[in-house]
Amino acid sequence: MLRSQLFSKTRREDPKDEVAKNAKLLIRAGFIHKELAGVYSYLPLGLRVIEKIKNIIREEMNALGGQEVQMTVLQNPALYEQTNRWSDDVVDNWFKTELKSGGKLGLGLTHEEEFVEMLLGHIGSYKDLPLYVYQIQKKFRNEARAKSGIMRGREFTMKDMYSFHVNDEDFKDFYDKVKGAYERIFERVGLGDKTYITFASGGIFSKYSHEYQTLSEVGEDTIYVSEEKKIAINQEVMDEETLSMLGLKREELVEKRAIETGNIFELGTKYSSALSLEFTDESGNKKTPLMGCYGMGVDRLMGAVTEVFADEKGLVWPREISPFKLSLICLAKVGTEAYKQAEEIYNKLTEMGVEVLFDERDISAGEKMAEADLFGFPYRAVVSEKTIGLNQIELKERQGAEVMMLSLADFYERMKN
Amino acid sequence: MLRSQLFSKTRREDPKDEVAKNAKLLIRAGFIHKELAGVYSYLPLGLRVIEKIKNIIREEMNALGGQEVQMTVLQNPALYEQTNRWSDDVVDNWFKTELKSGGKLGLGLTHEEEFVEMLLGHIGSYKDLPLYVYQIQKKFRNEARAKSGIMRGREFTMKDMYSFHVNDEDFKDFYDKVKGAYERIFERVGLGDKTYITFASGGIFSKYSHEYQTLSEVGEDTIYVSEEKKIAINQEVMDEETLSMLGLKREELVEKRAIETGNIFELGTKYSSALSLEFTDESGNKKTPLMGCYGMGVDRLMGAVTEVFADEKGLVWPREISPFKLSLICLAKVGTEAYKQAEEIYNKLTEMGVEVLFDERDISAGEKMAEADLFGFPYRAVVSEKTIGLNQIELKERQGAEVMMLSLADFYERMKN
Repeated sequence: MLRSQLFSKTRREDPKDEVAKNAKLLIRAGFIHKELAGVYSYLPLGLRVIEKIKNIIREEMNALGGQEVQMTVLQNPALYEQTNRWSDDVVDNWFKTELKSGGKLGLGLTHEEEFVEMLLGHIGSYKDLPLYVYQIQKKFRNEARAKSGIMRGREFTMKDMYSFHVNDEDFKDFYDKVKGAYERIFERVGLGDKTYITFASGGIFSKYSHEYQTLSEVGEDTIYVSEEKKIAINQEVMDEETLSMLGLKREELVEKRAIETGNIFELGTKYSSALSLEFTDESGNKKTPLMGCYGMGVDRLMGAVTEVFADEKGLVWPREISPFKLSLICLAKVGTEAYKQAEEIYNKLTEMGVEVLFDERDISAGEKMAEADLFGFPYRAVVSEKTIGLNQIELKERQGAEVMMLSLADFYERMKN
Repeated sequence: MLRSQLFSKTRREDPKDEVAKNAKLLIRAGFIHKELAGVYSYLPLGLRVIEKIKNIIREEMNALGGQEVQMTVLQNPALYEQTNRWSDDVVDNWFKTELKSGGKLGLGLTHEEEFVEMLLGHIGSYKDLPLYVYQIQKKFRNEARAKSGIMRGREFTMKDMYSFHVNDEDFKDFYDKVKGAYERIFERVGLGDKTYITFASGGIFSKYSHEYQTLSEVGEDTIYVSEEKKIAINQEVMDEETLSMLGLKREELVEKRAIETGNIFELGTKYSSALSLEFTDESGNKKTPLMGCYGMGVDRLMGAVTEVFADEKGLVWPREISPFKLSLICLAKVGTEAYKQAEEIYNKLTEMGVEVLFDERDISAGEKMAEADLFGFPYRAVVSEKTIGLNQIELKERQGAEVMMLSLADFYERMKN
């Protein structure tokens, strides 16, 4: 893409009404726009990150056999009354609205009830199980305060998967497979090293749930990490019982702040039973399926990546979720040999299918370099009178210090991978 | 995909609480699920149609130079107060909600104001124009009644693009290009022949707007069609002035019912001026950009396709938006030669990148055939003891009567295109 065809502008100054680093930087870089506290629009660069994260999640959910659906934002109170989650006394962060024709509606803050009700017409027999259904959808939470940027929005995008099983063995087997898929997702979005599967409090059906906690000073959670075993314990269940179950000693754990970037838990028959979802087993008996629930926040992952990697120069994107692979900068004026070569390189990269943002504007070298750093794509390539004289191109990794001079052949080879 | 891996079940009976043909059939076929009147979830088959329509629209908008963004559902009343569209006395179909921390919010029923406000920080100079920005996003309308299925939902998905121009000539030039893109979209979703660009009433900046009206008995609009010139006039502006402007005579027009599947119109400076969006022209003077607005309903297109093409046997999908290209049906039992061949054909088609739903279940031939008709993919292929004896495969087009016997080589050749 040509930089001149991208409408978003960058800013030098942080927005004054934001405290979170992710919101400050993403707004400065023109990735997002603030509509209201905790409510952000995604501009082209930000949307590219969001879509890449969604596609990674989608690929991994599909690989598990997950079937994608799209539930609704508007929610029927009748469903939540059956599980006692409609009253504001029980769930205090609903957004509610009213139908003109009468009656209240909720805005999706969760979707367990809606999924179970939808499946009433589609699950009948043990032959229909197991079943894994998911969506990537907006959710709404009426937070009293919204100071964490896109990490805890009032409107946000989440992947939520629900699994349905004939028995506990089948549930546990799938639950373990989901752990593998989650690990691959964290790896692919660049947070693998910093993310710990974390024992946290469960619900009525299990003492524990599992959270995925990404280490960061700005995290809202306190966890106790075993770096050796690559697991952690959330403060809320940090007791002798948990330690002994995991074969850990208090001394080997390090206290850390972390961002909850995913969670998976056992629901048992809580929702299936409340909404009368049943199947007939092999002997013809009616039974209630066991359920699991697997959540992951898309904007939150993007926010966590920003918090974890960004430096004093700006954003830093891991390869698989960067809006572009590289910024291509031309320091020469239109009409020069160097400019022509930069155009050729841009065309060649585009043909190769390499995602490149070509800054061909007539502005200062300093502005272009600073903007490339702020955008934070993995590579920055520079074409100038100097590089063309050497018949080379200048390449720098966003996170490296070294400026490399490469032949064009070497450069293309490198961009291919 | 294997049919046994698709959780949705089909029904023989129409749902009793629906009047619209599109809702009845799409629910029967397991494409959608009704949450509330006018609020539908999309199950895997329905979501595939929606995603294909979105991608066609996206490709055509990108080809125009459109930049995709994602605005929010939650809306700031302050913006709509500036254009006098917040009060229920003026706009009577808002869904409104309340922030826990105080203050009302709207649910996106339109996005002109939000787009203009977002661009305040990104448009400064004539060099930033023209600019075309769009989103594919959910919208919410608090309809008093909701009886048209997915054609007029309370929650629905829409593409809305907004263009910004330095002068009228530039606006008109782009407006004409959008007409071309819209024609291509209607062609690609299969509604090209039935859709007429239609003169309809404009706003304060122009006498006319353009609607895209798709002929259907269930349409809410009455239009007057010139089949020869491939244009139409909406009843609301059907007068001598319109006829003479278009060089048409009343006698040559045929009255038809039609579904409004798209609309494009000139906004002039209505929103840019109300929200103080300005640019500096070449002489350094402040000016207000002219705007155009280009809408298209994604669910409505899917609903219109259903209404227009479905027959007594079920749904009928045009090629580019069908969930799968074909249903592959095996009439032989697991373990037989015919079953093995059906599996091989399925694998080969999958390798070829052909989207195929393989019904490998152990149910009656009649049920499989009826379901394939109900699903309405362009082709149905049958493998049986008979076809394997002839070393052929049976192929039928959903909309044709002829059952063809083809060699496998001919069959693959045909599926390739």
